[in-house]
This record gives sequence, structure tokens and C-alpha cells, in this order.
Amino acid sequence: MACCGNCFCCQCCCREGETRTPEELTILGEIRDEEDEILPRKDYESLDYDRCINEPHVEFLEGIDNKKARKYEAIRWMMMFAIGVTVGLVGLFVDFFVHLFTKIKFTVVGDSVEKCSDKGCLPLSLLELLAFNMTFIFIASVLVLIEPVAAGSGIPEIKSYLNGVKIPGIVRLRTFLCKAAGVLFSVAGGLFVGKEGPMIHSGAIVGAGLPQFESITFKRIKFDFPYFRSDRDKRDFVSAGAAAGVAAAFGAPIGGMLFSLEEGSSFWNQALTWKVLFCSMSATFTLNFFRSGINFSKWGSFQLPGLLNFGEFKCPDGDTNCHLWTAVDLAFFVLMGVVGGLLGALFNCMNRKLAKYRIRHIHPKAKFIRVLESLLVSMVTTVVIFAASILLGECRDLSSPTTHNTTLSGSEDINSTIRRFFCTNKTYNDMATLFFNPQEAAIHQLFHQDGTFSPMTLSVFFLLYFLLACWTYGVSVPSGLFVPSLLCGAAFGRLVSNILKVKLGMDIYSGTFALIGAAAFLGGVVRMTISLTVILIESTNEITYGLPIMITLMVAKWTGDFFNKGIYDIHIQLRGVPLLEWETEIEMDKLTASDIMEPNLTYVYPHTRVQSLVSILRTTVYHAFPVVTENRQNEQDFMKGNILVSNNIHFKKSSVMSRAGEQRRRCQSMKSYPSSELRNVCDEQNAAVEPAEEGEDLLQQMLERRYAPYPNLYPDQSPSEEWTMEERFRPLTFHGLILRSQLVNLLIRGVCYAENQSSATQPRLSYAEMTEDYPRYPDIHDLDLTLLNPRMIVDVTPYMNSCPYTVSPNTRISQVFNLFRTMGLRHLPVVNAVGEIVGIITRHNLTQEFLVAKLRQHYITI
Amino acid sequence: MACCGNCFCCQCCCREGETRTPEELTILGEIRDEEDEILPRKDYESLDYDRCINEPHVEFLEGIDNKKARKYEAIRWMMMFAIGVTVGLVGLFVDFFVHLFTKIKFTVVGDSVEKCSDKGCLPLSLLELLAFNMTFIFIASVLVLIEPVAAGSGIPEIKSYLNGVKIPGIVRLRTFLCKAAGVLFSVAGGLFVGKEGPMIHSGAIVGAGLPQFESITFKRIKFDFPYFRSDRDKRDFVSAGAAAGVAAAFGAPIGGMLFSLEEGSSFWNQALTWKVLFCSMSATFTLNFFRSGINFSKWGSFQLPGLLNFGEFKCPDGDTNCHLWTAVDLAFFVLMGVVGGLLGALFNCMNRKLAKYRIRHIHPKAKFIRVLESLLVSMVTTVVIFAASILLGECRDLSSPTTHNTTLSGSEDINSTIRRFFCTNKTYNDMATLFFNPQEAAIHQLFHQDGTFSPMTLSVFFLLYFLLACWTYGVSVPSGLFVPSLLCGAAFGRLVSNILKVKLGMDIYSGTFALIGAAAFLGGVVRMTISLTVILIESTNEITYGLPIMITLMVAKWTGDFFNKGIYDIHIQLRGVPLLEWETEIEMDKLTASDIMEPNLTYVYPHTRVQSLVSILRTTVYHAFPVVTENRQNEQDFMKGNILVSNNIHFKKSSVMSRAGEQRRRCQSMKSYPSSELRNVCDEQNAAVEPAEEGEDLLQQMLERRYAPYPNLYPDQSPSEEWTMEERFRPLTFHGLILRSQLVNLLIRGVCYAENQSSATQPRLSYAEMTEDYPRYPDIHDLDLTLLNPRMIVDVTPYMNSCPYTVSPNTRISQVFNLFRTMGLRHLPVVNAVGEIVGIITRHNLTQEFLVAKLRQHYITI
Repeated sequence: MACCGNCFCCQCCCREGETRTPEELTILGEIRDEEDEILPRKDYESLDYDRCINEPHVEFLEGIDNKKARKYEAIRWMMMFAIGVTVGLVGLFVDFFVHLFTKIKFTVVGDSVEKCSDKGCLPLSLLELLAFNMTFIFIASVLVLIEPVAAGSGIPEIKSYLNGVKIPGIVRLRTFLCKAAGVLFSVAGGLFVGKEGPMIHSGAIVGAGLPQFESITFKRIKFDFPYFRSDRDKRDFVSAGAAAGVAAAFGAPIGGMLFSLEEGSSFWNQALTWKVLFCSMSATFTLNFFRSGINFSKWGSFQLPGLLNFGEFKCPDGDTNCHLWTAVDLAFFVLMGVVGGLLGALFNCMNRKLAKYRIRHIHPKAKFIRVLESLLVSMVTTVVIFAASILLGECRDLSSPTTHNTTLSGSEDINSTIRRFFCTNKTYNDMATLFFNPQEAAIHQLFHQDGTFSPMTLSVFFLLYFLLACWTYGVSVPSGLFVPSLLCGAAFGRLVSNILKVKLGMDIYSGTFALIGAAAFLGGVVRMTISLTVILIESTNEITYGLPIMITLMVAKWTGDFFNKGIYDIHIQLRGVPLLEWETEIEMDKLTASDIMEPNLTYVYPHTRVQSLVSILRTTVYHAFPVVTENRQNEQDFMKGNILVSNNIHFKKSSVMSRAGEQRRRCQSMKSYPSSELRNVCDEQNAAVEPAEEGEDLLQQMLERRYAPYPNLYPDQSPSEEWTMEERFRPLTFHGLILRSQLVNLLIRGVCYAENQSSATQPRLSYAEMTEDYPRYPDIHDLDLTLLNPRMIVDVTPYMNSCPYTVSPNTRISQVFNLFRTMGLRHLPVVNAVGEIVGIITRHNLTQEFLVAKLRQHYITI
Repeated sequence: MACCGNCFCCQCCCREGETRTPEELTILGEIRDEEDEILPRKDYESLDYDRCINEPHVEFLEGIDNKKARKYEAIRWMMMFAIGVTVGLVGLFVDFFVHLFTKIKFTVVGDSVEKCSDKGCLPLSLLELLAFNMTFIFIASVLVLIEPVAAGSGIPEIKSYLNGVKIPGIVRLRTFLCKAAGVLFSVAGGLFVGKEGPMIHSGAIVGAGLPQFESITFKRIKFDFPYFRSDRDKRDFVSAGAAAGVAAAFGAPIGGMLFSLEEGSSFWNQALTWKVLFCSMSATFTLNFFRSGINFSKWGSFQLPGLLNFGEFKCPDGDTNCHLWTAVDLAFFVLMGVVGGLLGALFNCMNRKLAKYRIRHIHPKAKFIRVLESLLVSMVTTVVIFAASILLGECRDLSSPTTHNTTLSGSEDINSTIRRFFCTNKTYNDMATLFFNPQEAAIHQLFHQDGTFSPMTLSVFFLLYFLLACWTYGVSVPSGLFVPSLLCGAAFGRLVSNILKVKLGMDIYSGTFALIGAAAFLGGVVRMTISLTVILIESTNEITYGLPIMITLMVAKWTGDFFNKGIYDIHIQLRGVPLLEWETEIEMDKLTASDIMEPNLTYVYPHTRVQSLVSILRTTVYHAFPVVTENRQNEQDFMKGNILVSNNIHFKKSSVMSRAGEQRRRCQSMKSYPSSELRNVCDEQNAAVEPAEEGEDLLQQMLERRYAPYPNLYPDQSPSEEWTMEERFRPLTFHGLILRSQLVNLLIRGVCYAENQSSATQPRLSYAEMTEDYPRYPDIHDLDLTLLNPRMIVDVTPYMNSCPYTVSPNTRISQVFNLFRTMGLRHLPVVNAVGEIVGIITRHNLTQEFLVAKLRQHYITI
């Protein structure tokens, strides 16, 4: 339904040429024409969130008592505090310079306009403004060229990361520097972008990087701090960092915590959540401390919570009839939610089209084209701002010296940001007041200014802002969406309130309507639920707004979901990230684990020759391999043989048709996936299972040099036993999983034993040695093969994860999905009732697109 | 360490006679003398949170498309709204009557005191007060006699329920009525109890009951509403109800949601959380709507959020030097947190001793003794209140007509609750102001009264209140702990602020210190983390208090945890509830699943005779049975035999020593568990495995009547095959789990087929028929055996859960625990590498006590 709405929407709002060149297809991924959908790419890696508990770890555990555990815990708390403070300081840095640059810009240009309105030298003022803005945007754009991942808001990336997908470069120090500096300039440059999204991304990077005490960007940064060297710990810190980012951006520590939970949490881990809340609190109050100190010179007081806050909503003191909102208003809020949802859906649809256009026509071209686009956007925005302020504004009465002095962030009075362009002293130019100010000030104006804005001005402002913000999001500068959406929505809300109050004479509080409008539009665009509700409540510092905000967001989300996904999900999808949803649709339960698993297994034996391992590692891209033995009971049935390609036996060679057919289908379907790398792998696999006589590389030749059959490598093997190998499909008893990184590590460190020795002679690696190279484990292709004796045998049993979670083949999808997502798994072996492995499930087998395809197949077969 | 601190604390603070009668031991459970600990009882049932997906369910699924799923979803949302509104109305009801009764009481007695202070007839006033209070308490106490579960705050019970333990009667309508009415009278009766805990319990009952549309208490209440008939749905609604209870009590919808998550959530379910938040919002705003309407006659406005709120913390308008708190204050807050933690630990320790004393000496006696105790507490409290107000108060200056009129809940001005007993017009009696008011008013006085309270008064007040509140909690009336703890802590905080402000002349805001004191003490007593932080922030409606509250709570919790557990956990432990902690200690990872599992299995075959099923169901208390087949490969090794007791084969009979020994140990250890019922079962089991010649009941005789060996009941069985049975331990292939309730249901509905027919002739039950009797499934003992043909065969395969989560025997405890707790499991089969079941893990195998015992064993053996 969402899809159908989507199609409809796409058709109605923006139709464009559909011709595609082959290069575009490569970049964009293969698009199914009927649905115009992008399939998840297969080259994104998953995080290893589930701990791989194996013997070295157990050794490690033996040394751990509760005292040591408490020390770890203490370090973890300290790290949380450090992350919080750092994120707060980053926020402070960004805020300070944005403030400074913006102030300089608006003072210079504002003065010039005031002067020129008499002298008629307005074009000169425009040029001044253009010079400022385009310089800033140029810098921001160049920074993004250095690190392309720094573009955009960063929330889609963080969402993907917390969901369990590694996107290359996403949490690197270089990204951080480009993002933090870039957002400073893109906001100062007057683009319709916010600094909240980039703040969240920056926070996440701080979280990922700080506890590592080393950097890949700057190799010199490296301390001896051997903690938290695992994806699990890193992801936990990233959640904390992202939460701190939200907390600093909105002054909303609880909202930040909930953001992390909503986007990232698999299971509710009380201890972690409590730490995350502490981290966000630290960020909020660090920022608060310094900003209060700097702005008011009152060090030690805490008066300015977040970078963005909405000021105090308050009835005038004397007025007892004034209510912020009443039960009757709720009906309007629901309607506004519907409209907000519709507008948001339109925004998303347009932005999606635009993003696709960019992927096809701008990204493939030279990089400076992107800079040019940024400059173009900046120029248009500047001209629009300037022209609208000068030409379209109306002079409105300043109703009265407003009695309640709502303090702005930055200690300015609400009236200090009023613009009087061409208006007499008692009036002000309403359009200029909105356009010719920092966005936060404009939001404050819409929320708290008692003076009215003309409906015409608000409509024009909304329209221009909507279009420009939509265009801007996706330009390669760091750019958040929250503030533009809020401002856009606030204009809409204020418009509604103007109509109700002035035209219909209702007794309402305009600020509330502006706020609800902002919430409705923002909700319609981003479709966040719990965390957004709480963030907005915290930003207003007014619990009583809870119900209206929640209802508005609910309605906006439901309305929007009828047409398309949230903007972040759209961008995630465009990137082909295999995101796992919250839960599967109930219909999916018609499938079972065996329907969706990958039946084509590449496996290793508990004791395997070095040459086989190298062969497996070189010819596959899998990140984990099941460790199996053949089912001995059937041994006598097996045909003895001595022809062998490698241990890397693909079932495709088997004569069991079901598996072979399945495998062929899989390989075909894999080809339709976007990653060209993968496609090659699939071909390679096809090649690998052909008789190896046409071997081409060193390895193949090495394999051919073999002269004797392999020893029978059982766990209880004596290597002198004869290896048996047969062509037909054999049951394989599952013993554990071993990661690619672990295998490579074993090979590089020479962990193996000679054929005529006992496996006890194999050197043992400690836990620290196994994880030393985190997060960049060496690649198999870095391995110098000449150093390895291909006839040596590796005993993987001490290092494999001997008891991963498994499911049985007829487990329902919802249960599989639940286990996989909740436990943060990466590989889920499917094991039948007698302990034989029949397949493996990874993230790709659980994406919505894959499941839908499988369900369709299921319907066809029955 | 916590245990050691605990012992130390117990010894230091309250030593008492340690003689125990055998009856006491039965009630209290067997106490290990060296540690004075109570082991978890084994007769509490777990919830079936994990869905048992089996064929009928799949049939059911086939009928479900996404459209139907959306309908379910819509009903769920409506239910959430209904629960929220109902909880709000319950809160309104309680609040209204408490207010009414309290007002009448204090007006009558207050007038009498004012009059009598001239006339000297004070004893008369005391009698009046006594009459009021003791009448109210009598009613409350009688209500609790009707339904004993209604005593106390109810939070321990709800916590247990959300943790996955069914406590009988906890979510019944009768409990609800007794609780809601009881708390009204116990609060109005002037006891030092709060209404917040009972509100949460009431909310949970509403959540559990409302979506069922039927009641066990009132059989007539029964609508045709066939939804949500499962423990899973019920628990989800209970979380929502409990959240709504918190939301109504504190006006803290976000806090309520987090409370539910913190106490109950296993995995973070976004959809559910969003609904829970909606439910809490509904509750808050229903209450707000009606209270604002009733109190201010302003229907449609929303001004009074929760039953308890803390008023507005605000600096006087003109004073720019006033800050609610500064960075320097944080140091004091940390210290106050430490003291609060210590005081809380002392409170808990004393209350624990008292609770044990009550369990031993009061609960075994006649029920009216409890009523007498309640009356005694009431009398002492009343006399103390009265005497202290009259004798110990000091007359303090009303500093100034306070400029900021902080509105109380109930639209009263802060000064309207001042008591002037014996003081001249410009002064007030500080002790009477605190004691002779509703507790909420006293809290407001401590938070917001500018006039000072003398340090002496505060100390005396704190001490008296501390002791009385400690005594009161546990008396059999519905009684919350939040408000007394807050008041007690606020007095402590105010004392600190008095000392700092007056003695040291520091420029601080007293209200903040009172608030922090309240938080510190409350945190020290209840040890809640995230949810309490958020609840307090929301109650103050002041985000800037986030950091100080959080730091205080953290410090208080850590300090307190050094000595003992939180009060709720203590009461849960005293009740012997097998609660699962958040995570296991890291040391536990030295154990594996096989160390803790229950190796003694009672199992059924896929096709089983009715007589065997009846026998199994009658002689065991297990709630689920693995469905197994014998491993055919080894068949030829088996000694053929035709002697059989029943299918209920205990491994104890086997000659494999390890299992037999293990089983004997288990049975021994089970005997040391408190439930006497269980002990019998264990004996019965011992009896059952003896050759059945000495059979005693109908069943045994029935079993003896058998004349032929059992058919060999494989899944692919032809019933004509001969049954093989051997004495030695056999490998059993695991196929699924079937619940006791399902088996009984099958028997009662006559689902079976005759020996000479195919299993396809067996009648099929639909999903609705299987769940019709929820939540009270019929017992096997209700079954009329004469209606059953013992030779018929039941095919359980269509009804069993064929793919539950399983673990391998050498899985680490942390992983097992994680899976069990997160997925809300009830039975976790342990299956070895070749698919044979070797044991089963239930909640009891994962309790802290059990694990500690096993770990000790582990250390001994190595």
C-alpha cells in the first residue's frame, strides 16, 4: 500500500525522463522497473554485535573476577562522562562560531540595507550578502569533498550503524572534523539547513572514537588503552554519543536517550541505558555551563540548555483566561497533523526524486560539479532571501511592548531580532524578520512574537522555504533537516493560528499553533515517534504540551506513512543499506527459516590444512564459516574417493537437485543485486567449483600440487586416517562458527601444527592477540603465502564460537527475525533436528525486499 | 559483597530473637542459617510470553492478511486509549475522595484545636482526630482482609509480573476494588503512606482486565471479545496500565513509559513503547482534564497534571542573582546523595527485619491481628502527629508576603496550608504545618515556603517520620512509599539548606535542596534509576533539574547498593519470587548451560496413549514437556523389553551414574525449597519411579491393567510396531515442546485416535478452541477419567511448538540468560550437537541464588 501510494505520489508530483545509462545503473543499483525500487546492496558489512565467545575468551574470563569487572564498569562510566563533555564542547564550538559569523554577516549587511534603503544602493547590499554566503558555502563544500561521508545530516548513516550495518568511513576522525567544521560554515552561509543532524553524527563519532584512543586518520594518535576493542562496545558507545549529540542539540537528554533506543537498541539493556542517559546529561550540562558562562558571564549557573530551544511558552501574567491550549484545540491539532503528514510526504517524495537525480547525474561527474551545485543553491537562496525581504514584506504594527520578555538563546530579547526594513518606527517588516535572521530567531519570532504576521507573508515564506529546503537537503554540504522543517512548519502553524484568531475570532494562543504546526511538518518529514515527541517536549520545557505534540506526531506519521517512508529511511534505501525493520509483517510468517536461508554453504573442518583455508578465504567473501564434521553414522555408505578440489565444497556439485537448484536460483538472484563486486564473487564461485584443472593463480597451482588425499579431519581425528570424499550430498554436523578475521589472524600468526604431531602442539593465541588489530583486521590478500607451509593443519576449535544461537529450519520468520535483530546477530546457522547444518541466515536474508520476493515465490509455488 | 554488607547492617541495626517454630519455617521458607536468605519459591508460575507457534496457529495465520492485522492494531490502539482514560478516572476518583475526607477531617479537628487552645480541651480534639483516623484505617484494613494481595504498594507485585512471574490474584478485579478503595481510606486515615504505588498497581490491573472484557470475580461480566487471549498480550497491556498508573500519579507520562520499560521490558519493542506512551498520555490528560474542570471550573483547560506534583520552582521575578542551582551546589548534592543512600539502606534494613517479623509472628495468626496492628499504627501515628504539633512546634516568622504565588495542587495558595496553632498572627507553628496537613501540602511547604523551619523541628520531624513510615510500610493496608519517602527526604534536604543558608550564609535556593534531599532519600530507598530520574524531572516540570537529580540518584543508589537491595526487591525476595536480574555477573560465565539445566526430563512421544498422558500430567507439576523420539540408529543396541511403568521415564532409573546422581542431588535440593507442595511432588516422583506394583490410586491401577507392550511411537510410527524399552540411558531426539495446558485441553476435548486408525482421523482443534479457556485452563484433576479410553492415542504434533529457541549444552550462562530473559521464555530446552535433548532450563535455573549455588559447586569440583 505504501508502495502503491508511493507510485501514485511519484507519478503525480514529479515525472522525469526515465532513460538510464549502464553506468547509472551500476551506481544506482539495478532498479526493478515496475516498482522503481533499489535493492539492498550486499557489500555493506554487519557489525559483530553478538559476542563470539570461544576458548580464548574463556581464558580471558578465568582471569576476570567481579572486582575486575567493576574496574571495567568504572572505566565505562568515565568514558561516558568524557564522551558527554566532549560532545558538549563540540556543540559549543559549532554554536560559538555560527553565532559569531552570523552576527558579523547580518550586522554588516543589515547596516548596509538600512543605509541603502535611503540611498538606493540595495544591489550592493545583495552583493555583500552573496559574498559572505558563497564563501562560507564554498568552504563547507570543499570540506565535504575531502570526506564525502560528511555530507547531509548524518542521521541516515547513524541509523544504519545503530541498526547494525557498517558504512565505511562513518565513524572516522576525518569525517568528524569535516562534519563539525562543515556544518558551521553551511549554517553560517545562510543555507536552509540545521546543525542538529550533524551534531548527532559528530556525537556518534566522538562516541566511537574516544574510547579507542587511536585514530586511523592520524596514525600518531595511539595510546595503550586495550579496552573496548569490539564492535559490541563500540556500538554501545556510539549510541551514547548519538544520544549526547541530540542532548546537546536540543537540550533534551531524555529525548537523546530515547533516540538511541529507538534507532539502535535491540534489547533493552538497563545498565547501558542508564549510562547513555548520564552521557546525554553530561553533554547538555557541559554545553549549558559554558554557554551560560560565556553569554551571561554567570559561570556556574545553567540557563541555556540546548543549541536549539523554543523559549518559554507562557500566558501573560495577568491574563487568567489565557490557556496555552484547550480540549477544543485538539481537533485542530489533529487536522494540522493530517496536513503536516501530507506536506511531509510531498517533501519526501520531491526530495527522493531529487536525490535519485543527483545520484544519476551529479555524483558520477567530476567532484567539483557538486561544489558548483552547492554554490548555485547558496546563490539562489541568498537572492530569494534578499528579494523577498525587500519586496514582499508588509509593515505590521508592533502590537504592544510585549510584557513577557521571552529570553532567546543568546540573551536577546524577542524584539531585538525584529527587522524594520523600510518600515516606520512603530512597525516592522514581517517578511524580513523571518528571512533576514538566523533560523532559530525566526522560529522564536513565530512562536512568541505577539505582533501578527500577515497571512500572505506566511504563505509566501512557507512556499519558498519548503522548496528551497527540499532542494538543499542532499546538496553536498553537512546539512540538518530539523530546523528547516521546524521553521517551515511553524510558518504553517502560525498561518493557521492567524486564520483562526483573526478571521474566526477564536481565543487561542498563537505560539501553541505555531509549535504544533512545526511538530506536524517535522513529524511528516522524519516520521520519528517516541524520541521526537520527547525531544519536542523537552525543548519547550513544558510537560503540558505532551498530549498535543504526541497526537499531532501520531497523526502526521500515519498520514505520511500512507504515501511513503520517512526522509531518513528514503535516503537509507537509496544508499542500498540492508536495514532491518522493527518487525516483520504478519504475512511473512507464512515463510519459515528454510525458505529464506542461504543453503549454499562454505564450511571448514575442525582441523583443516592451511592450503584449504587459504583457498576458502581467497575464493569467498563470507565473514564467517560454519565448522562442521561429516555425520559418521553414514560413513560406511560413503563412496571412498581421492579426488578433491579443496575443502571448500559447494553443494552445487552435489546431485541432490533441491539444493543445487536452489543454489542456482540464489546465484542468479545475487547477480541482480547492485554490488558489482558481489557479482564477480558469484562468478568466481561458479568458477571455483569447476574442476580446478584450469587453475590460474598461485593458489590453484598450489592446490594442484597435492599428491595425497586429505586426512580425515574429524575433531577426534588422528591425521593418519584416510580422508573420504564423495560426490553426493552429505549430512554435516554443526559444531560452531568461526569468523574470517579469526581465520586470517590464525594464519598470519602461524597457529598450526604439523601433520605428524598432536594438535596440542599448536601455539595458543590469547584474547588480546586475537583482537589486537581491531577494527581493521588484516586481509587474506595481505598474507605472504610463501611463509606458509600449505601442508600444516590448523585446529580452529579453540577459537570458534562453539555455541552460537541457532534456529531449526521450520522456525517462523517472525521468530527468526526477532532473535536475529534482538541479539544483534550477524550469522544465524539453521540447524535441523539431528544437529546438521542446512543453511545460514544473514542480514540480507531478512531485509524487507528479500522477504517480499520470497513470499511472492511462496505464493507462486502453492 | 552486597550480602556481606547486608549481614553487617543487619547485625548492627536490629538484632532480634532467632528462634523459629516449624510453622514459621514453612511459611517463611527454609532459611539458610549462615546467610539468613530466602530461596526463591518454586510454586510461582512464569508467564508464557514467548508465543507457542504451532499448526493451529498457522491455520490461524493463513486467515490473517495484513488488512486483518491492521484491524487488530487499531483495536489495540483503542484499548490503550481506553486503559489510559480508565486509569485517569480511577486516579480522579481516589484523589477526589482523599481530598474530601482529608479536608473534612482537618477542618473539623483544626477548628477544634483552634477553639481548644483557648479552652484547654485539647484531649477532645485528639479524640476527634483518633476517631476519624482509626475509622478510616479500619475500613482500609478490612478491605485488605477481603483480598490480602491488595496490601502494600503493589509495586513489588507488578515488578514480578512484568518480570514474567504470575502471582496469584495480582490482576483480579477484586484486588483492584480493594486496592483503590483501600488506598483512599489509608491515605485519608492519616497514615504515613502514599497513593502512588497503589495507583500503579490499580493501573496494571485495569490494563490486564479491560481488554479481556470478562472477570473471574464477577462471572457475569463476560462479553464476546475474542482478542488478546494470551499471556503475551496481557503482559503488554499490563505494562501500558502500569505506565498509565505512574503517569496519573505523577503527571509523568514519559516517566511512566520508562518505568514500564525498566521494570518489565525484555526487548525494546518500538511499536509497543509508542502505544504505552500514548496510554500514559491519555491517563495524564484525562486526570488533568477532569481535575482542572472540577477545581477551577475551567473545563477544557489542562492545568493540574498529576496527583502529586511539586509546584513550580522559580526564582522571584526581580532577582537576577538567584539561581535554582549552580555548579558549586553539585558537590553538596553528591554528599546529600551519599547520606540519602545511607539513610535509605537503613530504612530498608529496618523494614526488612520488620517484614520478616511480621511474616513469622503476625501472618500465621488470626487475620484480625493484622487489623489490630493497622489500628495500632494508626493510633500511634495520630498521637505522634497531634502531640508533636502541639508540643514541639516553634513559632516562626512568615518572612514576607511571598511574591510568587506557587499554586498547589488543589488551587490553594502555599500560605493557605500554614498552621498557626498557638502562634500569634504574624508567625506560624512550623511543626504543625508539616504534620497537620496532607503530605502533599507538607512537601509543598518544604519545597516552596520562603519562611524558615527551625533545624530542631526539621530534625524531629525527620526522625519521627522516618520511624513511623518504616513501621507503616508492610502493615496490611494499601500503602505507597513514594510520598512518605519524598517528605522525609525533603525534611532532610531542607535541614541541609537551613544549615548552609543560615549558619554558613551561602546564597542558595532552599527549594532545590529540599527537592534534592527528597530525591536522595527516595533513591536510597527504592533504588530505581532511569524512570525515577525522569519521573522527578517531569514532576518538577523543570528540565534544568535533570543533572542534579540524576547525579543524586546515581550516588544514592550506589551508596545504598553497597549495603542492601532496594525496598521493592527486598519484599520480592521475602516473597520468594524467582525474579530474573538484568544481567548475570561476569563470574557466572564460568558455568555453562549443562551446569545449570534440569537434566531430569519428563517427556512425551509424538504419539502417546491417553493413559500415559494422564499419568504424566498427574504425577508431575511441569508446565511443558519436550516431545521426543528415540534415536533410531542405536535401536539395535537396545535391549527389548516389555516391562513399563509409564512413558514418564525418569532418568533416575537409568544406570548412567552422572545423570542419576545429578537427579538425586536435584531432588534433595528441591526439598530444601520452601514450597511444601513441591516437596510432595518430589516425593511422589520418587515413588512414581519405583516399580509400580505398590500403586495406590485409580491411575496406578489403570496402568497396571495394561496387558500389552506399548506401540513404538515414532512420528512416522505404524502403531503395530513393537514398543522397545530399555533400562539404560537413551539418546532422545528433540522435536518440540508442548504445554501442560495444551495436553489437558486435548484430553478434555477428546482429541485422539484409535490404535487401528490413522492419525489423520484425529479431530482438529482451532486456535480459538485451544485458547478459549484462557487464563484459567482446566486442571488435569478436573478430568473425568471414566470418559477417556486409555488405549486411544493422542497425536500431539499438530499442537506442539516445533521450533522453540534452544541452546547447546556448553553455552555460557550470560548468553543463556540473555536469550531467556530477552525473549521472555518459560522453557529453554538444552539440545546437544546431534539434536538430542539433554536438559531443560526454566526461570528457577537462572535465579541469582541458584546460579550462586551452582558456581560454588563448580569451584568445589575444580
